[in-house]
Amino acid sequence: MPPILRSCLAGLCAAMLAAQAQASTAARDLGLPFNGRPGPLDAITDVPGVLVGQATLISGAADKANGPVVRTGVTVVLPRGKDSDAAVTAGLFDLNGNGEVTGQAYLQDYGVIHGPIGITNTNAIGQVYAGIQQWTSRRFGSAIWPVVGETSDSTLNDIEGFHVTAETAQAALEAARGGPVEEGGVGGGTGMICFGFKGGIGTASRIVSVAGKTYALGVLVQCNTGARRVLRLGGAPVGRELADRWLPCTAITPPLDTELPPCGPDGTGGRWKRDQGSIIMVVATDAPLSSLQLDRLAKRAAMGLARLGSYSGNSSGDLMLAFSTAPGANDTEHGASPTTPQLPNGDIDPLFEAAVDASEEAISNALVSAQTMTGYHGHRAYALPHDTLKAIMAKYGAQ
Amino acid sequence: MPPILRSCLAGLCAAMLAAQAQASTAARDLGLPFNGRPGPLDAITDVPGVLVGQATLISGAADKANGPVVRTGVTVVLPRGKDSDAAVTAGLFDLNGNGEVTGQAYLQDYGVIHGPIGITNTNAIGQVYAGIQQWTSRRFGSAIWPVVGETSDSTLNDIEGFHVTAETAQAALEAARGGPVEEGGVGGGTGMICFGFKGGIGTASRIVSVAGKTYALGVLVQCNTGARRVLRLGGAPVGRELADRWLPCTAITPPLDTELPPCGPDGTGGRWKRDQGSIIMVVATDAPLSSLQLDRLAKRAAMGLARLGSYSGNSSGDLMLAFSTAPGANDTEHGASPTTPQLPNGDIDPLFEAAVDASEEAISNALVSAQTMTGYHGHRAYALPHDTLKAIMAKYGAQ
Amino acid sequence: MPPILRSCLAGLCAAMLAAQAQASTAARDLGLPFNGRPGPLDAITDVPGVLVGQATLISGAADKANGPVVRTGVTVVLPRGKDSDAAVTAGLFDLNGNGEVTGQAYLQDYGVIHGPIGITNTNAIGQVYAGIQQWTSRRFGSAIWPVVGETSDSTLNDIEGFHVTAETAQAALEAARGGPVEEGGVGGGTGMICFGFKGGIGTASRIVSVAGKTYALGVLVQCNTGARRVLRLGGAPVGRELADRWLPCTAITPPLDTELPPCGPDGTGGRWKRDQGSIIMVVATDAPLSSLQLDRLAKRAAMGLARLGSYSGNSSGDLMLAFSTAPGANDTEHGASPTTPQLPNGDIDPLFEAAVDASEEAISNALVSAQTMTGYHGHRAYALPHDTLKAIMAKYGAQ
Amino acid sequence: MPPILRSCLAGLCAAMLAAQAQASTAARDLGLPFNGRPGPLDAITDVPGVLVGQATLISGAADKANGPVVRTGVTVVLPRGKDSDAAVTAGLFDLNGNGEVTGQAYLQDYGVIHGPIGITNTNAIGQVYAGIQQWTSRRFGSAIWPVVGETSDSTLNDIEGFHVTAETAQAALEAARGGPVEEGGVGGGTGMICFGFKGGIGTASRIVSVAGKTYALGVLVQCNTGARRVLRLGGAPVGRELADRWLPCTAITPPLDTELPPCGPDGTGGRWKRDQGSIIMVVATDAPLSSLQLDRLAKRAAMGLARLGSYSGNSSGDLMLAFSTAPGANDTEHGASPTTPQLPNGDIDPLFEAAVDASEEAISNALVSAQTMTGYHGHRAYALPHDTLKAIMAKYGAQ
Repeated sequence: MPPILRSCLAGLCAAMLAAQAQASTAARDLGLPFNGRPGPLDAITDVPGVLVGQATLISGAADKANGPVVRTGVTVVLPRGKDSDAAVTAGLFDLNGNGEVTGQAYLQDYGVIHGPIGITNTNAIGQVYAGIQQWTSRRFGSAIWPVVGETSDSTLNDIEGFHVTAETAQAALEAARGGPVEEGGVGGGTGMICFGFKGGIGTASRIVSVAGKTYALGVLVQCNTGARRVLRLGGAPVGRELADRWLPCTAITPPLDTELPPCGPDGTGGRWKRDQGSIIMVVATDAPLSSLQLDRLAKRAAMGLARLGSYSGNSSGDLMLAFSTAPGANDTEHGASPTTPQLPNGDIDPLFEAAVDASEEAISNALVSAQTMTGYHGHRAYALPHDTLKAIMAKYGAQ
Repeated sequence: MPPILRSCLAGLCAAMLAAQAQASTAARDLGLPFNGRPGPLDAITDVPGVLVGQATLISGAADKANGPVVRTGVTVVLPRGKDSDAAVTAGLFDLNGNGEVTGQAYLQDYGVIHGPIGITNTNAIGQVYAGIQQWTSRRFGSAIWPVVGETSDSTLNDIEGFHVTAETAQAALEAARGGPVEEGGVGGGTGMICFGFKGGIGTASRIVSVAGKTYALGVLVQCNTGARRVLRLGGAPVGRELADRWLPCTAITPPLDTELPPCGPDGTGGRWKRDQGSIIMVVATDAPLSSLQLDRLAKRAAMGLARLGSYSGNSSGDLMLAFSTAPGANDTEHGASPTTPQLPNGDIDPLFEAAVDASEEAISNALVSAQTMTGYHGHRAYALPHDTLKAIMAKYGAQ
Repeated sequence: MPPILRSCLAGLCAAMLAAQAQASTAARDLGLPFNGRPGPLDAITDVPGVLVGQATLISGAADKANGPVVRTGVTVVLPRGKDSDAAVTAGLFDLNGNGEVTGQAYLQDYGVIHGPIGITNTNAIGQVYAGIQQWTSRRFGSAIWPVVGETSDSTLNDIEGFHVTAETAQAALEAARGGPVEEGGVGGGTGMICFGFKGGIGTASRIVSVAGKTYALGVLVQCNTGARRVLRLGGAPVGRELADRWLPCTAITPPLDTELPPCGPDGTGGRWKRDQGSIIMVVATDAPLSSLQLDRLAKRAAMGLARLGSYSGNSSGDLMLAFSTAPGANDTEHGASPTTPQLPNGDIDPLFEAAVDASEEAISNALVSAQTMTGYHGHRAYALPHDTLKAIMAKYGAQ
Repeated sequence: MPPILRSCLAGLCAAMLAAQAQASTAARDLGLPFNGRPGPLDAITDVPGVLVGQATLISGAADKANGPVVRTGVTVVLPRGKDSDAAVTAGLFDLNGNGEVTGQAYLQDYGVIHGPIGITNTNAIGQVYAGIQQWTSRRFGSAIWPVVGETSDSTLNDIEGFHVTAETAQAALEAARGGPVEEGGVGGGTGMICFGFKGGIGTASRIVSVAGKTYALGVLVQCNTGARRVLRLGGAPVGRELADRWLPCTAITPPLDTELPPCGPDGTGGRWKRDQGSIIMVVATDAPLSSLQLDRLAKRAAMGLARLGSYSGNSSGDLMLAFSTAPGANDTEHGASPTTPQLPNGDIDPLFEAAVDASEEAISNALVSAQTMTGYHGHRAYALPHDTLKAIMAKYGAQ
């Protein structure tokens, strides 16, 4: 039995977790400096019409006494809400393809996405794909080709148990709404780990003025990537300061149920000394952009990730989507010409800058909003401690 | 009630079909001229280690009196058989992306495919994806990212009924074997229509000599593409000769249950006056090629399709995969260096030529091996009549 | 001294060439069947505003007694004539990248081309690039990034002599005009060899009706590619019939000045038993297409090449460009929004089909219009004999 | 006459420049924190066999009294020195394609580069291309397809005067050598401006240990990109601190010879409030990587740029090359099989991290090593003042 598990069973675990508990918050509330002007929600739902739905599956104690240890779920982004599968113009960037985003042939050749985008765990792609097809078939008469991305929650979740079903995806779709987006260990992000801290879903937005018009741009991420020691927040070398502290309690090598390393603030173990995992990033805007421009916008999401210090390690599936909700996307099935003039390239810079800034903030939000979680095999990922973070920011002049 | 359906119910249908019935055969047996030297099976299974499995779902009479009209299935290609999910080096070409092949990020960035490739109908991608993940999870301890392609059988099959399940995919996987490959309306190709004739699965192979070594190259296609009037077989303008004959009996415009056009040899209706549908093409070889070389090889499959007269219409998802079974693919999860030297580019031409030739033949085989089928809403696709084909070939000097 | 050269000096050469001389003509005038309706010129200049300019450099006898043997030149295509460097929306397809087309980063990310497209020999890319930059700098105040393609005329031309200069390119630009386009061994095509016959420049066009509007589509090729034995014209296996006849008299292996193989109708030598060389294909249209649609259109040019039997050998740089002259391309330097609605994808098929058909015809025209040429080291490429071609077409029912 | 020019003529200019003059240095010597272990030269020439050559053209006073104002040049990187045009395996990443890198078709399809890489100004691409072709033709018997990149020096240099010639390129080639690399306003970087400071050439290297073997990785950049206010150095917000100080004295709008804004430490003018220009980044390593792996490595150079705060504005041509000098690249012209096993993907992370780190440092070095320069139309770009930089670093805890 792993020591952490023994500790938990002995009642120590709960105390440690309680000590670790902290209010969910946003990175900017902790003093992290970000550029640009956020929207009212500072969320992807600031882009008019964009809805987010999440279904979270948490069951089973870490010791498996009560069945499988499930820490997973599904997050969906609906570019045009629940009542339309009309195309949105879209783009893609593959920073490191150790991952999956389905629907790429159509997205890249036609430059559009129809219907919901799903984000889930690595072994739930098929089920979420099927769930979205069935849901769109029922609502719109025929199924769309879903765009479904993933990151792996195999540290905290019984991923080979295939607990996500087509119904989980449909529950997320039904739950989709505007307004504030829950962040951290929720939906597809439930079991995710980000720069060695508990991660998951994060979001942010910017309001930009382009040639006299105002546009919204929002980013939603499912962050499961990053080596601890390289982490930079607000430019400060947080990872250097916390290189060996609060690392996840996980087995370093398979089999996963070997002895866990020492845990807690001074834990020295963990695979997160090198880059682990993956990130899915979704950029939405109501600015009228062509698919080529959205391909380029998606690259700026990767630049936002780079600001966190990531080098996008080999095990990472770091995939970036971007879409525009402006009317008139070229839809192969329907005959009407696209009518919205695309933004001149010479005017696009405020959107590029906003995409980098909002991406940096969305990942930061995933980090500061998540709560410590214990899961599969007793593995545990710690929340980034807010007080420690504030002290580091002060040390590096980010006030 | 559509007239064809009425005819069928009156007993005439069976007679018409019987008249149309013909022995399954290979295109070269009908005198079509192909270049190059085929392997002993003239099939993708001539590449050592490559297995093909198919699961076919046919149920329900065309009039739906006995439940849904199911004409669909799954075909799988196992690059390294059932006992290995070791990577094969792989490439991809997207001729027209109105379709889906999953797993593209990993395939393109890492240049490999792990485990089985699935081919099915458009609305079964998710289920086949899940089925392959579950099967590989059970067999190999963790799930792979499946590469799953599709074409739409919505004319002959109740596609929105979602009749393919994860179990169908696993049945195809279990059925995988070497040896002859069944062609025509079988597996994923069950309900497919190719250049306005009943189509589906086709295969062919070539044996090539490269710098003193002998390699096998095989192609398997699921053909559901092509406008009738442009069809060329063995260089002869078969489509021009049969532009308005033996066209599918289908509703021209939705709703699909409107009156069907006149049917049979002189039927003048059908949407197949313009390009319809999609094609998935899989090229396998045991020659040691890099992923860049396999990307290029996949383009040659598209050149084979072009020889049939296709212009790859907008509604087509024409996607080409290529893989090499040579040992030593670079596998991200395992640490061993690739050890097989790749073929020098200067020696690659015989493989390029073989890929074009075998692709041309595989599509031709899908056409001549399929049998007339009646399905959803009484729609019917006719087999390419062999006697007529032989007469056309003679007229154009291809003897 | 190579035997062919001895023959020439002995006076036999002239007689052989005279016997070989034939009127320049178009492939359709020889009875080759092509689909679709050509424009009035059957040339890329049927697209309104598109101009073509050519500069041809021919000097030096084959024996080098009078200086270097120059058989080369420059062909330019001006999408918006001489008085505008405004962007045209553009796309690209790389069928086999053993070649060069400059300007790809801008073309692919911004989806446009500014100013003239140049086509020349492999060792003249830099000079033509410089020539176009200087010419556009003078005319428009600042230089554009030229798109310059090439194929190698090293068999007939002293290519390492660098005889093309920036001034040659500017001469081609100044010579640009609408109207009929000279084909065969002219401009950039001067020293080119196509399927083992003398090749070079070819062009064709189609008039298509799309959703009630009429558009022109034109293709111009510089054909220097193809193995003899695979050549198909109008579907007939011309290459099989002439596999070993009229092959170029060239050294099989370097050094190039070794003994030449037997020459003439029964010559058995030549490297053209396998694929050689490259092809540049330019597709122009006035239909309003997006850059993604033009990428797809460029792929159809490759399908046209495939109809000729090509397998795009390893030594081939087979690169396809496509552009649309419709107003309103998104130009990065200027602020105006693009205003022309792009064609719905659902309406694009007639343009795809036209691109394949016109590409097939343009290459055929390059073949039938060229004249036998003797050049560097006494190498000689023969014109495709018209009478023989007509006999073959008759044999294969193409009347 | 622009005021700055008047000041210069009045003798004030020299004094200002003298005050500004500072010793050339490396960023790490000023206390900027960088990760990883640099090579002995901290330069791309730490990769064995890699040579760098530079030719610098500076002539004409800023007032044009003595002819054209030339501030430009050529930098070349020779992957295998001067005596070999053997292929190196290579990759490419296009972060923002408002620029040119020639030779992309071959680089991307064959995954190799032959011979020297050139970097120069936007209007010298053709001349450098021709120069490299002529030089390689002379040395190796036939010309290669050069890979030539550019950024625009139109602020400081008379770019439309086309002062770079094929001979300039050949002078850079002849000057190529190992050892220390001159940085700042030299070679192709002579007239470049980086984040609103005088920029140009920068380089850095890392020594990494991979699976028991030691490899070198070096980066060379020609930095001409970046908005001032976003600049981060060593994580510190240098751009925020110096948003409106030491901006280039340039006309805000054409014509360029309008009144210049106030100059010097408190100058408030300049276009560099938004992103301007471009960057070419070259990553070299002796680790045996495949072309796919080098494509991925090139993306890490872009992540290094992102650490500087760049959002890669629309006017930027931000293009990244990567190559491996390990023996055995697959060379299309020669028949030998590649023999060096490529690095397993699972071992690649140290190289990815090194590429990000060395890229960040190379750009930083371009910034701190350049000297203030006055050029075309009296425009002036200031060197980043070292004392100010050190003060900012101290303020933000980077000691």
